[in-house]
Amino acid sequence: MEHDIKAVTHIDNVKLSEDRSAVIIIDQTLLPNEVKYISLTNDKEMWDAINLLQVRGAPAIGICAGYCIYVLARQFDTEDYDEFLRRFREEKDYLNSSRPTAVNLSWALGRMEKVVTDNKGKSVQEILTLLEEECLAIHQEDIAMCRAISEYGLSLIHDGDGILTHCNAGPLATSRYGTGQGPLFLAKEKGVNIHVFADETRPLLQGARLTSYELSRAGVDVTLICDNMASIVMKNGWVQACMVGCDRVAANGDAANKIGTSGVAILAKYYGIPFYVLGPTSTIDMNCKTGGDIKIELRDPEEIKEKFYAKPMALPEVKCYNPSFDVTDHSLITAIITEKGICRPPYTESLAALFK
Amino acid sequence: MEHDIKAVTHIDNVKLSEDRSAVIIIDQTLLPNEVKYISLTNDKEMWDAINLLQVRGAPAIGICAGYCIYVLARQFDTEDYDEFLRRFREEKDYLNSSRPTAVNLSWALGRMEKVVTDNKGKSVQEILTLLEEECLAIHQEDIAMCRAISEYGLSLIHDGDGILTHCNAGPLATSRYGTGQGPLFLAKEKGVNIHVFADETRPLLQGARLTSYELSRAGVDVTLICDNMASIVMKNGWVQACMVGCDRVAANGDAANKIGTSGVAILAKYYGIPFYVLGPTSTIDMNCKTGGDIKIELRDPEEIKEKFYAKPMALPEVKCYNPSFDVTDHSLITAIITEKGICRPPYTESLAALFK
Repeated sequence: MEHDIKAVTHIDNVKLSEDRSAVIIIDQTLLPNEVKYISLTNDKEMWDAINLLQVRGAPAIGICAGYCIYVLARQFDTEDYDEFLRRFREEKDYLNSSRPTAVNLSWALGRMEKVVTDNKGKSVQEILTLLEEECLAIHQEDIAMCRAISEYGLSLIHDGDGILTHCNAGPLATSRYGTGQGPLFLAKEKGVNIHVFADETRPLLQGARLTSYELSRAGVDVTLICDNMASIVMKNGWVQACMVGCDRVAANGDAANKIGTSGVAILAKYYGIPFYVLGPTSTIDMNCKTGGDIKIELRDPEEIKEKFYAKPMALPEVKCYNPSFDVTDHSLITAIITEKGICRPPYTESLAALFK
Repeated sequence: MEHDIKAVTHIDNVKLSEDRSAVIIIDQTLLPNEVKYISLTNDKEMWDAINLLQVRGAPAIGICAGYCIYVLARQFDTEDYDEFLRRFREEKDYLNSSRPTAVNLSWALGRMEKVVTDNKGKSVQEILTLLEEECLAIHQEDIAMCRAISEYGLSLIHDGDGILTHCNAGPLATSRYGTGQGPLFLAKEKGVNIHVFADETRPLLQGARLTSYELSRAGVDVTLICDNMASIVMKNGWVQACMVGCDRVAANGDAANKIGTSGVAILAKYYGIPFYVLGPTSTIDMNCKTGGDIKIELRDPEEIKEKFYAKPMALPEVKCYNPSFDVTDHSLITAIITEKGICRPPYTESLAALFK
């Protein structure tokens, strides 16, 4: 396959259809074997797309949710503001229930709702126009944010470094370069040599299916490993930094990200390797004091025992515990990199400063 | 399914056929979906069975190798001692090349060879009789060793404890109760309540396919998790001890075991949870000064990208690093439990004392 970084970093993983009647996404569950675009036109399809991880990655979920609620609002078929607002909130709550942990989902939906409530005096048609502008703005802002995060992140990478990453926070999960993996694509673009170790990220294998796919297609030197190989790779001296995305960051710097992230951070601490969390400020939830306040989504045991396999890998009666995220304690995080700059401990101060 | 601890702990996972013409094993690669016995009659089948992990677990490999070389020796069809020894060594070297890390393989083959060289004056027929006794003795000794290890291990478990385990070192990997998981079966038998968390153990899923299968069938309360969930399970306060087997232990206590073990040990240290390594003294290699001297087997990338899956999970051009084992530093190990007792740090002294 030819390596083409633009073909990876400039894909439209989430977009509005030309006629604004649908949201079009790449079905990420089919990668890397098939690149298929699907069209979401009703709330059930949208809820499923988010819940089943056809669209995933906190920023991409936010972008998608903005487009979804706009497409649904266009279908309300009422000129009455109160009826419009009632149905808007109904759909918002429904979409918001599709995944509990990612703050971007409720953040984007809340931002769209504010357009409706801030413009009570205007006609429904005018409000729809403003909603369209808002969801497109969410997307454009994400592109700028990802670029800024990638630039800040790249400033922490040296030529020849090995970088270990977990899960997927690249172009598919965001827009353009990504967050957690954004600096890796930017490094390639700027000719900085790096070697990436991508954790496969069980049970849904986003690292294998998406991260190694994106990096490999972009021509970045990537080696896929099982999650439990991170320790030996670090011990071998092959890793100079860890970079991961985040789904929600508490005010004290505790960071929720894909299950397994906290384990990587503990290993990095043990081996004396810096551990960086990358994400937009929209991921920082200042209402959330510590990681203890972050609700962790529990998912179906089937994902561990059966999904992707030709045959089940455990007996039907075997119980599973399948948390989708874990919280990395702030004491394990070397820096949190946002589009506004690099935050260092103590995070209660450096994160608060971002919002001043 | 009915729970029956004896049906799990007293299976014949490796045995000689009645007529001594074959070694019969359970094909562990087919579990948990199928319990199939296969018959090994020539060296190629035997080499493949070990190499492809149809028989696996350091003690079971040792038992199997003893039986295999005996079955092969019966086929030499010579009465000439020198010719017999030459062919014996040829087959021994060939079988020994099937897997590089497990010390039990070369240990069992070496023990069988010693029977041949110690009895040079005897007829080939007499030597064959002694070889049969020796390989049966290796098996019987393993049963006694596993029982003793399980008893010592159980003395470290309290009623109500949560125990996290990695890979498989239960009845299938050994004889009877097992080593790393031996105390868990013995706990059940003695009415000690425990909750086990079994790491699925990528890429070959011995924890899912074998450990959760064995424990569940024996009626032990077991929860299957992905390897990257060990951190959150420990953080939740659900784990009071980690217990794992070992493939080779160096004189300083560094322990090679299934890939990912060192990561579990680092997590356990971070969360203040004791980390126990269990194995027979035959696994301790006093000629090996530190873990740095232990050769780590590298396996096929296909195991990470394709094996077990209905479709490949990464692009063909994506590189993988697939070490089968890692070395846990002795400083992370709370105790090493052998059939001769519980060794505590400093291991250079406590392990040496075992061999006096």
